[in-house]
Amino acid sequence: MSFRYTLYYGGCAAVARMALEEVGADYDVVPIDLASGRQRSADYLAVNPKGRVPALATPDGVLTENMAILLYLAQSFPEARLAPLGDAWRLARMTAFNSFIASSVHVTFSTFGRPERYADDPAAQAAMRAKGPVTLREHFNLIDRELAEGPWVLGDTFSTADIYLTFFSRGAAQFDWAASQRNVAAHLQRMKARPSYAAVYGEA
Amino acid sequence: MSFRYTLYYGGCAAVARMALEEVGADYDVVPIDLASGRQRSADYLAVNPKGRVPALATPDGVLTENMAILLYLAQSFPEARLAPLGDAWRLARMTAFNSFIASSVHVTFSTFGRPERYADDPAAQAAMRAKGPVTLREHFNLIDRELAEGPWVLGDTFSTADIYLTFFSRGAAQFDWAASQRNVAAHLQRMKARPSYAAVYGEA
Repeated sequence: MSFRYTLYYGGCAAVARMALEEVGADYDVVPIDLASGRQRSADYLAVNPKGRVPALATPDGVLTENMAILLYLAQSFPEARLAPLGDAWRLARMTAFNSFIASSVHVTFSTFGRPERYADDPAAQAAMRAKGPVTLREHFNLIDRELAEGPWVLGDTFSTADIYLTFFSRGAAQFDWAASQRNVAAHLQRMKARPSYAAVYGEA
Repeated sequence: MSFRYTLYYGGCAAVARMALEEVGADYDVVPIDLASGRQRSADYLAVNPKGRVPALATPDGVLTENMAILLYLAQSFPEARLAPLGDAWRLARMTAFNSFIASSVHVTFSTFGRPERYADDPAAQAAMRAKGPVTLREHFNLIDRELAEGPWVLGDTFSTADIYLTFFSRGAAQFDWAASQRNVAAHLQRMKARPSYAAVYGEA
């Protein structure tokens, strides 16, 4: 029998879940209610001392951070071809894209979605809520240029970068300016056609 | 003759430079003066449209993001053994550590070092400068626990995670609380013994 993964789930753990779906892994989901602060409970901190999601229980141990989970699943299920593992340049390009998502795009979402993480003063939090969407638009303008070739982030080859982007392009779609970023919008439409999308986001 | 890399250099590009030193690559440095905003000049934006450092010109093209440059150099110079390339679990652990540095530790430094990136209001920037070091201490408490086994982030095996951490443990050493994080301090001392450290940071 194959190993059954456990995904501690909420918010951006949807990224890890979509990858589990793409590789066809068996997994259970343990919901972590972020609104009630469950990620900072003692029992969850024993799983992930960082108090964040996702965390994935694997046969090797508990793994955190979407970027790591994506690479681990790509290596553990090579037949799913989620990463150009044998090509140093293309793997680095995938890593650069995912790193931009993790350290810029996701962070910018956090500055206007969870400003209390960065400043205690309510007026400061309001200032961050104001600036965040402006910065986010700049990020997505860059991503839109990167998707000009398409159909996927790496061109012809689907990869974890497409999975990672999807969570955030869904979030960006709420803004008026998203409509002008046609490559991003088309990418999201292509992602919606994948069975893994409906399994995670519950819509077609 | 071997390829000669070009590193666009400033701030955290020290991470990429230390990796170039570790693998013994030939490289030139092009300083990008961040204080004068050179990273947003038209000629640099032609190199890296994100307007950030590092950027590394490789035989395959220009690569950005420290995480990607670290992985690319590890794969391009396998004899330097900067990453456990054949071991999915350990490579994922290295990636998780580096992702935490990129998306949490580095970002927290930015919130108090470059708060204008996240809020326009001067009072909001002051609030971020106040909270940042508190959050940073929490990050380094977690890192100190991860280094308990040692001597390196991955235990017995030196990796890119040690290189990446070093830039930020140097920055954290300015705070009083850093002295209590003995594993981090001992790790930094071990790093200072490497020739690559003196080559990049100019001190022993």
